[in-house]
Amino acid sequence: MLEQLKQQVLEANLDLPRYNLVTFTWGNVSAIDRERGLLVIKPSGVKYEKMQRDDMVVVEVESGKVIEGTLKPSSDTATHRALYLAWPEVGGIVHTHSRHATIWAQAARDLIALGTTHADDFYGTIPCTRAMRQEEIEQQYEWNTGQVIVETFAQRGIQPSAIPAALVHSHGPFAWGKDAEAAVHSAVVLEEVAYMALHTAQLHAELKPISQTLLDLHYLRKHGKNAWYGQN
Amino acid sequence: MLEQLKQQVLEANLDLPRYNLVTFTWGNVSAIDRERGLLVIKPSGVKYEKMQRDDMVVVEVESGKVIEGTLKPSSDTATHRALYLAWPEVGGIVHTHSRHATIWAQAARDLIALGTTHADDFYGTIPCTRAMRQEEIEQQYEWNTGQVIVETFAQRGIQPSAIPAALVHSHGPFAWGKDAEAAVHSAVVLEEVAYMALHTAQLHAELKPISQTLLDLHYLRKHGKNAWYGQN
Amino acid sequence: MLEQLKQQVLEANLDLPRYNLVTFTWGNVSAIDRERGLLVIKPSGVKYEKMQRDDMVVVEVESGKVIEGTLKPSSDTATHRALYLAWPEVGGIVHTHSRHATIWAQAARDLIALGTTHADDFYGTIPCTRAMRQEEIEQQYEWNTGQVIVETFAQRGIQPSAIPAALVHSHGPFAWGKDAEAAVHSAVVLEEVAYMALHTAQLHAELKPISQTLLDLHYLRKHGKNAWYGQN
Amino acid sequence: MLEQLKQQVLEANLDLPRYNLVTFTWGNVSAIDRERGLLVIKPSGVKYEKMQRDDMVVVEVESGKVIEGTLKPSSDTATHRALYLAWPEVGGIVHTHSRHATIWAQAARDLIALGTTHADDFYGTIPCTRAMRQEEIEQQYEWNTGQVIVETFAQRGIQPSAIPAALVHSHGPFAWGKDAEAAVHSAVVLEEVAYMALHTAQLHAELKPISQTLLDLHYLRKHGKNAWYGQN
Repeated sequence: MLEQLKQQVLEANLDLPRYNLVTFTWGNVSAIDRERGLLVIKPSGVKYEKMQRDDMVVVEVESGKVIEGTLKPSSDTATHRALYLAWPEVGGIVHTHSRHATIWAQAARDLIALGTTHADDFYGTIPCTRAMRQEEIEQQYEWNTGQVIVETFAQRGIQPSAIPAALVHSHGPFAWGKDAEAAVHSAVVLEEVAYMALHTAQLHAELKPISQTLLDLHYLRKHGKNAWYGQN
Repeated sequence: MLEQLKQQVLEANLDLPRYNLVTFTWGNVSAIDRERGLLVIKPSGVKYEKMQRDDMVVVEVESGKVIEGTLKPSSDTATHRALYLAWPEVGGIVHTHSRHATIWAQAARDLIALGTTHADDFYGTIPCTRAMRQEEIEQQYEWNTGQVIVETFAQRGIQPSAIPAALVHSHGPFAWGKDAEAAVHSAVVLEEVAYMALHTAQLHAELKPISQTLLDLHYLRKHGKNAWYGQN
Repeated sequence: MLEQLKQQVLEANLDLPRYNLVTFTWGNVSAIDRERGLLVIKPSGVKYEKMQRDDMVVVEVESGKVIEGTLKPSSDTATHRALYLAWPEVGGIVHTHSRHATIWAQAARDLIALGTTHADDFYGTIPCTRAMRQEEIEQQYEWNTGQVIVETFAQRGIQPSAIPAALVHSHGPFAWGKDAEAAVHSAVVLEEVAYMALHTAQLHAELKPISQTLLDLHYLRKHGKNAWYGQN
Repeated sequence: MLEQLKQQVLEANLDLPRYNLVTFTWGNVSAIDRERGLLVIKPSGVKYEKMQRDDMVVVEVESGKVIEGTLKPSSDTATHRALYLAWPEVGGIVHTHSRHATIWAQAARDLIALGTTHADDFYGTIPCTRAMRQEEIEQQYEWNTGQVIVETFAQRGIQPSAIPAALVHSHGPFAWGKDAEAAVHSAVVLEEVAYMALHTAQLHAELKPISQTLLDLHYLRKHGKNAWYGQN
């Protein structure tokens, strides 16, 4: 079942080492079939070079039950489920420990838009979540990780489609998009702007976001109704 | 038409990933045929690995009209046009978001000549433009990006042939040269000296340019009338 | 003799350049056969691209005597011996001068757990040893290097199985695990977290470890009795 | 003539891009035949991927006269000559603009021994030369570059065989060794320790050299009369 979605999820997972976003097996991509309420996700701890389409695991989003697959799903599956359940516009999710996004998450700092590279794909600040409470960690940690991301976006009034990534405090990034490929795209851009922001901070102690006008221009040039970037 | 120029522009575009100057499709190279008043440029948002010679787009420099090609030209085409129209000595232009040049652009700082690597190809400070005004961003943004570069060089009395690159405030680098290949060369050197200047700044808080004598020696050794570098 | 162990040690040594942990021949991996009291280790100063299984050297752990092999064992063999003799749970050891772990060793600073990437494989701070005394350096330097690591763990009450690496003051990292492959795994994770900690320090001057609850969750998720990471 | 030396010089030059020490054609290696008073050096400005053994240029060391070769020798040939004439123990010389060594040269700072990676191949501080005087730059610049290196070693009482590299103020590194391959080895180690020192400086504001005892142990273990590193 879901052979096409499995193929997309496999390919998106294989993109993680290709874009230098992962070491060993530290990353996972999923995608959802909204009609059936099922997600497809990478198995836990399997090496990228050996991964096959049929290793992908099918999980019921609502319950977390494994529907198909001989391997255990990613240990982060509950985080993916929490995000899919909260955000109907999301079709694919990526988690990595990519170096520079993780550095910002470890520093517990938001990533503000310092340039147009950021503005081209993120319509403002990429938030860092609050530290999780002891009971949130001890009980249903992965599920609560998703809940804290959802809470952050709700409290700050951020649309997940406008800012397709979050930094999880002391942990690392989650990124998403309309499908698995778009989610990987978000993760790559996040890593790129995290690298550049880190070193911009070293040149220029007080960091200020770019102007709203410039943010609007770049984001809407690629993502607005009248986008004029690319061939569409 | 312009098959040879298209081939040069294709090859120069393919050099951008080869020199690690681009992620995804974030970069574009053009070249101009001055006699016909036409430029050849990369299409917008097309992947480097699939790009062919005949995907290159021919645009009338004066009007911006597409003369040949089935794809849309790069969304930055108007910036290229503005530079070609202002500067008759320029034959090729490159735009990238290369990491370290972009970091200086995000920090809104000029890149002064800290060593002979810089002096070998840039005859002094590589300027960062001023922030663009709201109306410049809202109307004809890409054209105005070019105008602000031209204004910066005019106000500071810099020759574009002596300093073949600029940092666009909050955005990233543009570089140029006598043809597409020379423009890519400028972009590579810019990225290299931007990396080294970033870390020199970390060792040595107050940055001072190298002496005028050393700047003259190195620049003129490669670019002066009596150049003695290389086989020419 | 010990053909299987030699093959494992060869492969683990070849993983060092694959994971970018070594320049030239600056690294060595060994593994132990506890029943026979023998270790297998890389020969000294031999290039990775020419190394063969039968170049591996068999050494008696207790005495340091070469039992088999035509080449001299790694000059760091006595450090490996000291660790194997002190710690019965260790089955493989790696020494490298990997860039970022070495940077922390040169700065003589402990590497505290700043995020879950660290917590996934190290159950707390990775210690940096004290500077060695003049007589420890002048007599049996390599053996004493091992002794200082053992002393550090003993004095701080750290279990080598919980923190499978140490930073040797002014020198670089040693890492270990249940076998040669696990030791390389520890060395790769150490390098990764050393890189991220270095840059986290640049964003956030005062470094604080993550909470004990989060440390417990991540470490025990992969290494505890009820681990739920991976396929086991 | 000198076919074997040309082959060694060619291979050493090709090692520069292999070890990521050069961009474009920014680097050159030479070697000397002391008996005949001739050196073999890379031609100026020729691409590494097209370079052949017979492109190497033979130059008389004393006079600087080209003895054989259809191409012009490296523009830095006079610097190589100055070093060979001053230091009879040197058999091969490398010049690069490798990123991190150049950063220290641009910051005009000596590179002190911060760890054993440095001590393994450099027996103490790698000096940065003084700024060159106007007349030294304007007349015989390349020859004077060599003279300033020689002056620095003489004034500080440093043996070029013990410290086989120098940082040239505002410029970049020169490195050497008993032959061309050894010179490249010195250049690679220099770049590695320059990278690590840069970031050690960021962790630890006041940099202190390692103890003389540790410096002695590591340097003499590889280079002393009773060296016990490697297979010799």
